[in-house]
This record gives sequence, C-alpha cells and structure tokens, in this order.
Amino acid sequence: MQFSARNVLKGKVQKLVNGPVNTEVVVRLPSGEEIVSVITRTSAEKLKLKEGSEVSAVIKASAVIIATE
Amino acid sequence: MQFSARNVLKGKVQKLVNGPVNTEVVVRLPSGEEIVSVITRTSAEKLKLKEGSEVSAVIKASAVIIATE
Amino acid sequence: MQFSARNVLKGKVQKLVNGPVNTEVVVRLPSGEEIVSVITRTSAEKLKLKEGSEVSAVIKASAVIIATE
Amino acid sequence: MQFSARNVLKGKVQKLVNGPVNTEVVVRLPSGEEIVSVITRTSAEKLKLKEGSEVSAVIKASAVIIATE
Amino acid sequence: MQFSARNVLKGKVQKLVNGPVNTEVVVRLPSGEEIVSVITRTSAEKLKLKEGSEVSAVIKASAVIIATE
Amino acid sequence: MQFSARNVLKGKVQKLVNGPVNTEVVVRLPSGEEIVSVITRTSAEKLKLKEGSEVSAVIKASAVIIATE
Repeated sequence: MQFSARNVLKGKVQKLVNGPVNTEVVVRLPSGEEIVSVITRTSAEKLKLKEGSEVSAVIKASAVIIATE
Repeated sequence: MQFSARNVLKGKVQKLVNGPVNTEVVVRLPSGEEIVSVITRTSAEKLKLKEGSEVSAVIKASAVIIATE
Repeated sequence: MQFSARNVLKGKVQKLVNGPVNTEVVVRLPSGEEIVSVITRTSAEKLKLKEGSEVSAVIKASAVIIATE
Repeated sequence: MQFSARNVLKGKVQKLVNGPVNTEVVVRLPSGEEIVSVITRTSAEKLKLKEGSEVSAVIKASAVIIATE
Repeated sequence: MQFSARNVLKGKVQKLVNGPVNTEVVVRLPSGEEIVSVITRTSAEKLKLKEGSEVSAVIKASAVIIATE
Repeated sequence: MQFSARNVLKGKVQKLVNGPVNTEVVVRLPSGEEIVSVITRTSAEKLKLKEGSEVSAVIKASAVIIATE
C-alpha cells in the first residue's frame, strides 16, 4: 500500500501510555529523536503495539508547521 | 517560546514550491530524511524562507498516524 | 501495511483538480457519496492518480467533527 | 448553517466510549461502514449524544489522506 | 445545527485569495484580530464568500497548540 | 521564535481537565471568548500550565473551517 502522506518516519515504540480512549505512543527514530503520537486505544490494540514494535510515523504535509529562530 | 506540540525536528530548507495560496516546503533533516510541509505563501514570505534556511518542523501528536507492516 | 487511522473508505477517483502545489481529489464511494481530499500535487503524481483509480480515503479519528441537527 | 468542510456523512451513533477528557464516537453509516471520531467529553455531553442519535461526521478535505494498493 | 467543535469565532471576511485548488480566507474578529483559513476554492464558491460576508471560524480542540513565553 | 501558523490568540488559562493521556485547556481571550485545546498531559506538565497562566493558542490555517448562516 502506498499513500499520499509525504512524511513517513520509521522507528521503534519506546513507550506506551494508555487511557480509556486514547494511547500515547512514543517512537524512537534511528537518529535518537522521538516522535510522539496520540491514537485511539482501540487502534493501539488492533496494531498490537508494544515496546520495541517496529512502526512508521505517518504525517500529512498540511499538518506540519514551520518555525524559524 | 515553548509550545505544546511534542514533535520538533530541525533541518534545512531544501526546496520551495510556490502557488498563489500555498507554498510547499521540503526540509532535509540531518539524518538525510525529508519532511514536507504545506504552509500559506504569506507565511513562507513572512518567515523569509529560502533554500538553506534553518527551520524546525513542528507537529502536534494528534496529527501523527502509526503504521505497522 | 496496517495503520492506526480508524476510518478507511474505499472508492474510485471521480475528478482531479491540479494546482501548482496541491491537487483536489474527489472520490466516489459505492454508496454514491463523495469524499473530497486535498493532497500535494507531488503525491497525486507519485500515486499516479487518474479518473477511475481505486483508492482509499484514510482519516484519523481526531480529525472528525460530529454535528447534530 | 452551511460550512466549508467538504465531507459530511450522515449516520447513527452506535457506541460511545467516555474518558475524563475525550469521548470516542462510533457512527454507523447507512452503507454499514463505520466512522470513528474522538471529540471532547464536554462536546459529547452538550450534543447529548447517545446510542441511536442521528449525527453527521464532518471532515475537512485537508485532513483526508489518499491510499492506493 | 450544533457541532462538536469547541471553538467558534464570529467575524467578517476581510480578504480572499484564490488559487486553482484552495482559497485563503482572512476573517476579522470584532476584537480586531484576524483568523486565517485555507479552504477549497469550491467551498468558497458554494458559500458565496465575498469581502464583508459574516462567517464563523470553526476549529476542533485537537487542532489547537498551546504556547508559552 | 517565529512560526508559519497564521493564527495566534493570546489569553489566560481558565481551566484544566486532566486525563491519563490528554489535558483539556480552556483559554479565556481578552474579548471574553474561550478557546479550547486538547494537548497531551505531558505537554501541559512541561509547560507548567495552571489557572491564570498566560498562553497563546496557535492554529494552522488549514485546520480552520468556515461556516455561514
């Protein structure tokens, strides 16, 4: 499957925080940086996410803000 | 300034594509990966973005999808 | 590939409108309803979208508003 | 009231999952498909959502990703 | 019609910038502040937006970032 | 720091609702209107948000829907 989202960053699940509705997923990239995602708990369970799972963080270009210093 | 968005990835502008309303900004990360953002053209002009500009790509956790293979 | 986005609606591309940065994609669902997406033009070209292409519209649950009358 | 969001799908609330901050709303469309939304719990209470409520799922075109197989 | 989006700011259209796919809508609030929206050009035409039109800017809580200085 | 998000509304935190994953932040603007944001609880803690904190609500133009009556 291919999709239109331009940003796909591969990494490993480092931490999961479960709530009744949502789950926070912390993904560690090979560069050592972290990407944090909030998905529904049902999704986290369907994907069988656990620490160490190999995942991709997928982000649509229209959701990315640019900042300068 | 600090902000609630959990994901901040630093890089350099590699390419800009201007339309009448929006500008596509391609950011190269130190890891070699690219992040693509679409912002308004007015924003791109206010930030004086050009190839080589040092920028951060800022992404809210709720906008990140997780995919597994 | 599986992903955390909870909403996946299958249909066929009915119409494409190209701009310099973005492309509007109108997808017709089997029910006759239409889903409209705006993606980058580069994505539309990478996916080789044309009228009649079979696609899925993928939407994260946090992006869905609920309205009542 | 009319609004700019291009995607409006009518259906009935099939299930609600409450957390302290958010509520997950599962909407069944006439086609049998489901749309899942996460809104604030306060919104769910203001809209008096319950199983069987007639609702519309409203989605902005810029939030829709296109996938191909 | 009522909807789950928590943020509804009323104002008047101050400026419209049309592209082939999208339209930028600048809304002036009674406080003098401006809200900028990007919607599809088709939406802008369906809503018959022009300078001076009375509109509401509607924003889902999950799309709002918090910043501190 | 400057950023591409076109909408920045200053106000004070009026209320915080904590869940295990997310925190709802109600911001009161000088005009008396309220903006509601949902951010991760970790973000709310990093920003040390409490009632009365001076904050900005930051919103990307592509996340704003326009409605007319």
